[in-house]
Amino acid sequence: MNLILFDRSELHADGLVRLDGDRARHLIRVLNIAPGQDVRVGVIDGPVGTGTVAEVSEGAVHLRCALGELTPDRPRVDLLLALPRPKVMRRLWPQLAALGVGRIILTNAERVERNYFDTHVLAPETYRPLLIEGLQQARDTRVPLVSIHRRFKVLIEDELDGLSPKTLRLVAHPGSDRTIASSVSRGADERVLLAVGPEGGWNAFELELVERYGFSRIRMGPRTLRSDTACIALLTLVHHYVADAC
Amino acid sequence: MNLILFDRSELHADGLVRLDGDRARHLIRVLNIAPGQDVRVGVIDGPVGTGTVAEVSEGAVHLRCALGELTPDRPRVDLLLALPRPKVMRRLWPQLAALGVGRIILTNAERVERNYFDTHVLAPETYRPLLIEGLQQARDTRVPLVSIHRRFKVLIEDELDGLSPKTLRLVAHPGSDRTIASSVSRGADERVLLAVGPEGGWNAFELELVERYGFSRIRMGPRTLRSDTACIALLTLVHHYVADAC
Repeated sequence: MNLILFDRSELHADGLVRLDGDRARHLIRVLNIAPGQDVRVGVIDGPVGTGTVAEVSEGAVHLRCALGELTPDRPRVDLLLALPRPKVMRRLWPQLAALGVGRIILTNAERVERNYFDTHVLAPETYRPLLIEGLQQARDTRVPLVSIHRRFKVLIEDELDGLSPKTLRLVAHPGSDRTIASSVSRGADERVLLAVGPEGGWNAFELELVERYGFSRIRMGPRTLRSDTACIALLTLVHHYVADAC
Repeated sequence: MNLILFDRSELHADGLVRLDGDRARHLIRVLNIAPGQDVRVGVIDGPVGTGTVAEVSEGAVHLRCALGELTPDRPRVDLLLALPRPKVMRRLWPQLAALGVGRIILTNAERVERNYFDTHVLAPETYRPLLIEGLQQARDTRVPLVSIHRRFKVLIEDELDGLSPKTLRLVAHPGSDRTIASSVSRGADERVLLAVGPEGGWNAFELELVERYGFSRIRMGPRTLRSDTACIALLTLVHHYVADAC
């Protein structure tokens, strides 16, 4: 935890916040805090600031918080991801939040198994703590927006413009001519929506449909990666080319 | 499995190879192969080629292989990694092999817990199949060379030049001035040795020592990543800037 996040409702009017559970344990056992010490804090979807330890009691820590005015910008990259199998998705949640995505759009595709949708890994009470874990690692406060779509065609045709309007849209597909470097202008001030397919890739219909809705095919490199590794690698490269990553 | 790998000892003089276990199951159940069909094959640390299904019997597949002459080049990037905890290391093995590393040098550091070394995840019989899994994903045949070092200072001062001579050496450290982009000449024909620290980072002594032995500090971006995510992200960026990744 490089930043201790709490909900706005946990913050009292006098600027005090009382932490227990994992966060208190981390402060006491890992950071070994003592009264008077400062730690980095942040309000979920709000500003960051400094928390001064006011009191450490059995399993709880009281911090007096001085918060900044500004909430960090939402990361400029959104992710459209064909739902991976539950074990992989569980691992990806914190990593996606840490790498920085504004929005995570999970979708069905021909090569996604139907039962992947019937898992508690897609329940907010499971994934929200995992996203917050990633934010605390990366020192961000903006929880990625998440939506789950079982009908690919409806998502692309009817819903996507509402979710992620006016962006540069890229779809990763092996053997494409263009690279990320040639597709994203360095330091450009635009949002990027990156689509990553399932293990085995998008099928021809899916590729054609997303291209019709403004996605350009890009390739990553000569090596075929597992979809979770590909996701991290592609987000890294897109961030490398958009302004907020430098 | 995008490439079926086998050991040279499994290949008979007449070009036939008999596969059983996981590889046969994958060919039969996932790829649904039939006699006469071609699949991509490769010899571990040898050439790639085509295997024509000669026979499918109970749990075994016989392939008649036509192999190329050339063994793929070893990837140009080597990794010096402070040993992560066993669960993370287990997950990293196939991902590192898939991303492409010539050599994996695992080391101790102040912030590595001593008991991380006492794990079967570091036994060749555990990690070699995981590396081969990654190679089969990425269609490579070159198994990364692996060495494990409990003494950081001895490694850097006495052993590293023998393991990874004449390379561009980079150490990831937050807040550095230089980026990977400014450190690696695009398309350069040199090997890169990338050092990635433990959770919590290298300590001052370790950083100073590696700098004395030719490592330049680089930063990745504004976000602090978990060491396994950082490893994938950094390898992606280094590959992006060396010749064999384009």
